[in-house]
Amino acid sequence: MNAQSTPRISADGTVLHLLLGEAETRFHAIWLRDNALDADTRDPGNGQRLITLGDLPDTVTLTDARLAEGQLHITFQPEGKTCAFPLRWLADHTYDTSAPAPLLTKNVTPWDSAMAPPSADLTALQTNDDTRRDWLASIRRYGFAKVTGMTPREGGLFDIVDLFGYVRETNYGRLFEVRTEVNPTNLAYTGLGLQAHTDNPYRDPVPTLQVLACLENSATGGENMVVDGFAAALRLRDENPAGFDLLAGYPMRFAYTGSAGVALHSRRPMIELSPDGTLQSIRFNARSAAPCTDVPFDKMADWYAAYRRLSDIIDDTAQEVHFKLAPGEAFIVDNTRVLHARKGYSGAGNRWLQGCYADKDGLLSTLAALEAQDA
Amino acid sequence: MNAQSTPRISADGTVLHLLLGEAETRFHAIWLRDNALDADTRDPGNGQRLITLGDLPDTVTLTDARLAEGQLHITFQPEGKTCAFPLRWLADHTYDTSAPAPLLTKNVTPWDSAMAPPSADLTALQTNDDTRRDWLASIRRYGFAKVTGMTPREGGLFDIVDLFGYVRETNYGRLFEVRTEVNPTNLAYTGLGLQAHTDNPYRDPVPTLQVLACLENSATGGENMVVDGFAAALRLRDENPAGFDLLAGYPMRFAYTGSAGVALHSRRPMIELSPDGTLQSIRFNARSAAPCTDVPFDKMADWYAAYRRLSDIIDDTAQEVHFKLAPGEAFIVDNTRVLHARKGYSGAGNRWLQGCYADKDGLLSTLAALEAQDA
Repeated sequence: MNAQSTPRISADGTVLHLLLGEAETRFHAIWLRDNALDADTRDPGNGQRLITLGDLPDTVTLTDARLAEGQLHITFQPEGKTCAFPLRWLADHTYDTSAPAPLLTKNVTPWDSAMAPPSADLTALQTNDDTRRDWLASIRRYGFAKVTGMTPREGGLFDIVDLFGYVRETNYGRLFEVRTEVNPTNLAYTGLGLQAHTDNPYRDPVPTLQVLACLENSATGGENMVVDGFAAALRLRDENPAGFDLLAGYPMRFAYTGSAGVALHSRRPMIELSPDGTLQSIRFNARSAAPCTDVPFDKMADWYAAYRRLSDIIDDTAQEVHFKLAPGEAFIVDNTRVLHARKGYSGAGNRWLQGCYADKDGLLSTLAALEAQDA
Repeated sequence: MNAQSTPRISADGTVLHLLLGEAETRFHAIWLRDNALDADTRDPGNGQRLITLGDLPDTVTLTDARLAEGQLHITFQPEGKTCAFPLRWLADHTYDTSAPAPLLTKNVTPWDSAMAPPSADLTALQTNDDTRRDWLASIRRYGFAKVTGMTPREGGLFDIVDLFGYVRETNYGRLFEVRTEVNPTNLAYTGLGLQAHTDNPYRDPVPTLQVLACLENSATGGENMVVDGFAAALRLRDENPAGFDLLAGYPMRFAYTGSAGVALHSRRPMIELSPDGTLQSIRFNARSAAPCTDVPFDKMADWYAAYRRLSDIIDDTAQEVHFKLAPGEAFIVDNTRVLHARKGYSGAGNRWLQGCYADKDGLLSTLAALEAQDA
């Protein structure tokens, strides 16, 4: 550290100026105090904060900033409490930037039909942490991955969920059968082709992951397809930014009332952004789209034009990756991002898939823990 | 119907003008066509849409609008397809309004310490649909209800979830024990008092319901409290609209890494609005609040002031309903809205609660189905 890196405190004591790497960055006294890392502020065992904002003085100021051994030592007033912050930790948590929030988070890469589907063998996933980490990372990056080498048995798909988390049970059960039924409660249970869609947008919270595993597939047709909803939304945004803003700016309605005792309704946008504009999730499902009643009359024609264009983009084969699952193969999609579809099927032979839902919290947590283990 | 109620089609054929009740309202041709109720557009069995926007002509126009027997009959061009819409259905789905989206949806009523906690007996809930419907409706309205008359046994809280839906399993298990532990992985498993909070804000999706059931409660202290997060947010908005907008306008970060193999992180605002401004959810938890790094430097001081004020409002006893659970009693909270807390406890005697998570989709669906059954 050279002389330039000496930390400086603003005249009123509320802001610290600090050279981190090449750039000067600033932290507020209240931010530093609230996020102090000492054992009276954070439980050393479980890392949870032991104080609330109400435990702090009304005004927090700083004195005596100095650097030693890669740490900032600083004293909070009126408490007279000195705390240390590793400079690396401060660099990882700087907020003094003029960059707007990115449209996509750093671990997300959009894709089109040229994507080679990530895939791994179930036994390898169960026995090799590196294989499992890389496969989970590909789901975080692409919202999609395949699994091979399953025993094609009932409930076998739970072995996939056990790799990272927990099944989300719903009115469809812990798992559901995807095969042709008489009097189907859902068009999924017919031989009809299905446009690419996210599942259960009428559910809030939506299931954030879906697994579909193949037990039999000797019917003609029935290929699966996946489409990156983020890539489709970005393409819409490039072509028609105002249309993108309309789909992101108003809630859509979705509904499902096809089974006795079930009346699911949601009110969420087709393109969901964080409040600072990061792409968060996609809901797209023609089957369960309810009448849209939250868009003002004067904007409805443009909203529908954008919706139709998004639908066309989703139907464009340039966006689509397709494959036919063999018995013992499965795929997982991030249901907040990647749409899935199937071609119609018919004729002799059978097509039998089993599906289940799960959630991303467990998947991302397991991945982050595996990555931390490597670090 | 009098002469005034004759429907009228705009010159270009894209808009229908219709008198519904006292007011004229308008519908777009594309909206009507997409939402047509005929058996070729919607499956008569399960109600799902059989077409996509790509199946429709590029431009849809209207001809031959007429009313008969409480229905609008209208012909879509160029398809030459005539469809009927019940006027009551149209009135229920009108979107030609200048009213902005409400801050609270119609089934939500904010409350403070004067609220009398809704409560029902478990056996009545299991055997009487009216009791169950009213109890579920009170959870939709207040985000909180109690249950009495449980057998205080392990896993007994699942009987509550069975009334409406499904357990959300997490890394904490299908249920978790809330009692004092040595080396606790979470401060909940100590005798410490806990500020009112929503659970697991570091999880995305967050569990939208929580059930806490009492098996033993002979310790001194340990009362439970609940606070309406929507009421707290509205109070902040009244006092400091700019501060409300800051908390709603930027993501907060939450994290939990207190157990081996678990590294949960989320990036969601403390006050979450729909894109058109309806209050959607609250996340508030000092223990698991991670450093906020998404608020620009120039706004951080005001953001912290709003956060501190929200924390003070949440701590204000004027907002708080408190009660001590007896063995065999439980409560459920909407974890996207209502914060819960407990006072510290100690001394002789035991405090043993079991908790589990579930989701609102099932609860609201069961309620809507019970209401439809009455209609």
